[in-house]
Amino acid sequence: MNASAKKRLLTLREEVYQANIRLVEHGLVISTFGNVSGIDRGIGLIAIKPSGVDYADLSPKNLVVLDLDGKKVEGDLNPSSDTRTHVRLYREFPDIGGVVHTHSRHATAWAQARRPLPCFGTTHADYFHGPVPCTEVISDRQIGMDYEEQTAVQIVDAFKGIDYHGMPAVLVASHGPFTWGRDAAEAVYHAFILEHAAEMGALSVTINPRISGVKRTLLDKHYLRKHGKDAYYGQGKPHG
Amino acid sequence: MNASAKKRLLTLREEVYQANIRLVEHGLVISTFGNVSGIDRGIGLIAIKPSGVDYADLSPKNLVVLDLDGKKVEGDLNPSSDTRTHVRLYREFPDIGGVVHTHSRHATAWAQARRPLPCFGTTHADYFHGPVPCTEVISDRQIGMDYEEQTAVQIVDAFKGIDYHGMPAVLVASHGPFTWGRDAAEAVYHAFILEHAAEMGALSVTINPRISGVKRTLLDKHYLRKHGKDAYYGQGKPHG
Amino acid sequence: MNASAKKRLLTLREEVYQANIRLVEHGLVISTFGNVSGIDRGIGLIAIKPSGVDYADLSPKNLVVLDLDGKKVEGDLNPSSDTRTHVRLYREFPDIGGVVHTHSRHATAWAQARRPLPCFGTTHADYFHGPVPCTEVISDRQIGMDYEEQTAVQIVDAFKGIDYHGMPAVLVASHGPFTWGRDAAEAVYHAFILEHAAEMGALSVTINPRISGVKRTLLDKHYLRKHGKDAYYGQGKPHG
Amino acid sequence: MNASAKKRLLTLREEVYQANIRLVEHGLVISTFGNVSGIDRGIGLIAIKPSGVDYADLSPKNLVVLDLDGKKVEGDLNPSSDTRTHVRLYREFPDIGGVVHTHSRHATAWAQARRPLPCFGTTHADYFHGPVPCTEVISDRQIGMDYEEQTAVQIVDAFKGIDYHGMPAVLVASHGPFTWGRDAAEAVYHAFILEHAAEMGALSVTINPRISGVKRTLLDKHYLRKHGKDAYYGQGKPHG
Repeated sequence: MNASAKKRLLTLREEVYQANIRLVEHGLVISTFGNVSGIDRGIGLIAIKPSGVDYADLSPKNLVVLDLDGKKVEGDLNPSSDTRTHVRLYREFPDIGGVVHTHSRHATAWAQARRPLPCFGTTHADYFHGPVPCTEVISDRQIGMDYEEQTAVQIVDAFKGIDYHGMPAVLVASHGPFTWGRDAAEAVYHAFILEHAAEMGALSVTINPRISGVKRTLLDKHYLRKHGKDAYYGQGKPHG
Repeated sequence: MNASAKKRLLTLREEVYQANIRLVEHGLVISTFGNVSGIDRGIGLIAIKPSGVDYADLSPKNLVVLDLDGKKVEGDLNPSSDTRTHVRLYREFPDIGGVVHTHSRHATAWAQARRPLPCFGTTHADYFHGPVPCTEVISDRQIGMDYEEQTAVQIVDAFKGIDYHGMPAVLVASHGPFTWGRDAAEAVYHAFILEHAAEMGALSVTINPRISGVKRTLLDKHYLRKHGKDAYYGQGKPHG
Repeated sequence: MNASAKKRLLTLREEVYQANIRLVEHGLVISTFGNVSGIDRGIGLIAIKPSGVDYADLSPKNLVVLDLDGKKVEGDLNPSSDTRTHVRLYREFPDIGGVVHTHSRHATAWAQARRPLPCFGTTHADYFHGPVPCTEVISDRQIGMDYEEQTAVQIVDAFKGIDYHGMPAVLVASHGPFTWGRDAAEAVYHAFILEHAAEMGALSVTINPRISGVKRTLLDKHYLRKHGKDAYYGQGKPHG
Repeated sequence: MNASAKKRLLTLREEVYQANIRLVEHGLVISTFGNVSGIDRGIGLIAIKPSGVDYADLSPKNLVVLDLDGKKVEGDLNPSSDTRTHVRLYREFPDIGGVVHTHSRHATAWAQARRPLPCFGTTHADYFHGPVPCTEVISDRQIGMDYEEQTAVQIVDAFKGIDYHGMPAVLVASHGPFTWGRDAAEAVYHAFILEHAAEMGALSVTINPRISGVKRTLLDKHYLRKHGKDAYYGQGKPHG
């Protein structure tokens, strides 16, 4: 690795570390659950949380570094047990720079209920351009293969006909949410908004069990005023 | 602007700033969501939160100042994307001095469920003289027009036959709550009470799905002991 | 008032002040809602929170002191608007030394749902010897009379056949809970346990809508191991 | 007791004290509810929380020490009223080193609803190898006998055909959860995870009342990747 690549890797480690810490601050993880990774596509390297390590013991230095084949490049610890899901997503979704997996309570509850999260309102529509898809339950054949990589395959299957740019989240059936973004920080932000939308969605269903999602025109209006090419929300800077 | 108007504007900026901060302290907003505005009708000026700015970066100085036509008078930043809703409400409801919009979880859940919030008890009746109305879903024609201004039109339509003095809150269908008051501080206080009533309302429906609202005589008793001309709650000072 | 009575009144003011503060610390009240009173039956005086005063501004000194007829003996402020309910309860239930009223979210939700809180488990049975009763909705005739005093009449009516010693709590329909105890501190403790039981009760109903209360033998076992004459819970000191 | 046994007992007292404190930090208990015990099988001694003592007043020194017959060996205070349940569990489940009882809200709500907690997802499957069993309601005959010891008998009855090694938790009907582990710390950790799974389970049922548990193959995959002899989660150290 040349000096420039080394410097970029240091930056990536720092960003992924900060994003992992923000996951805790947002209340999205308990114990050692959850993991954030980030990729620098210029140097082809991924940094990810080690497996089963307390967040309090985490540092930029003990993150594990892998290449796009999932081969460890740096690090003494085992990478997150979900690493192969992350790596495969980076290969399948070529524009994403960060991936997050949590067991946050409301998003996980929807995943456990095996229901896509309908877009019930503008909070959701501001970030997710439609219902957040829920994968099929993973097949016994896939469980018997490389389970973690097959989890990514399930996700990709759920995105047939859906643009992952406008839908930076998925519910893995009987498991929990994965989110992504331009970088690790944005992926965490999407995990945070997803949890908020999932909580309000569960409340909406409690209040009115027959409620359906918002109509397409309202969904488009809100998503596009924030993310379309004529977006007019905010101060003209990227948001997240 | 003469010296007296300048001084009043400084006061307005400070009040609106404080009200925005209280929104965060009450847990009514996450991220950059939500916005508070206030008006000084003597000088005809409105101060409002800038769009997409973190609450931590907010100050009395970076608020945006507008006139009652919605024209920017002071400020470098874009005003809240919901500004035209605020401005139109100030024109339609001539006695209000502050407007708040949040995505607070329980009030938003009722808005997403597209149900008025029934008055289930005296906590609600102490502040809202009846069920909190829910607007119709905005029409495609209105979405295609000036969406944010049409949101205010939807609100005004929902208040046919309802006195906005005794009902300082509304649920915008598929979106979230707006509240108002004599000034920005009272509008925030109403947003806080609305969230509390909406939370207890969701719980009441969970416990007894067939529950209906309180009877008119009890509603009147509680609202009027606090707000009628013979009010006897508190120490004879305005409450909020 | 002689010196001994004055000293006892100071003690009562301090106890009632502390109990009001604990109400806030337990998260049982928001804003200026809720009120605690205490009585010293030896001197025949009641101390109660003033109406509409922020808890931050409360002190032993600004509590209002009344006699058992509800006549103000000391204090510059108006007493809690619910004072006549407290005073009447002290007359009707001669062994109680403290009364608490809150709008705590889960207990109020049951009151709004107009359902007694069934005894679903031993947490409840440890403190409340049966379902917590819910009053009838107050009649229009009673609303037109002295409303706050009639609230106490409603409570007493709900206790026909129930011993208030073993049931230190009630849900006032469409309103919220009242609790009592040997003194103000115990009344607050009962409000705290009631809220916990009401929260778990709402969850139990969510999980199993057809669930019924515990059987009598288990209810008796738990209540009596803590409160019966052969009680063996704790260290032999009063518990609270 | 020889010097080595004394030293081991000091260590046990410290571990059990720390575990009790962690129960409070995790928000699993309110007031004086809940209790943790631990056993050192080498010296045959159990340390347990005294009954009805505030957690703030707890110290390694005021724990009560008992032998496996439940006879007090050291301590001035009465042991937890649930002591006989703990002692009997240590006799019935010979490999456990710590026992926890809480009234944590969601796990207790399931116990009150008298429903086993289905395994709805991988969070649950990572720690509990199947649905968490719920005991039968205790019989009147058992209530009339040694109630607390019979509670353990109910638990053992619920484990016919279930290996307590892979299922370190139970819901006692109309009462609340008990959990266990290799030591007091792990038993507390299991109480914490159980509460999290119970909360997400209640939410899943709200979102989809007809949801069933995960399939066996997925349950096995997750449980065994963490606990099987070929476990690959974490860093190869015991997890807890």
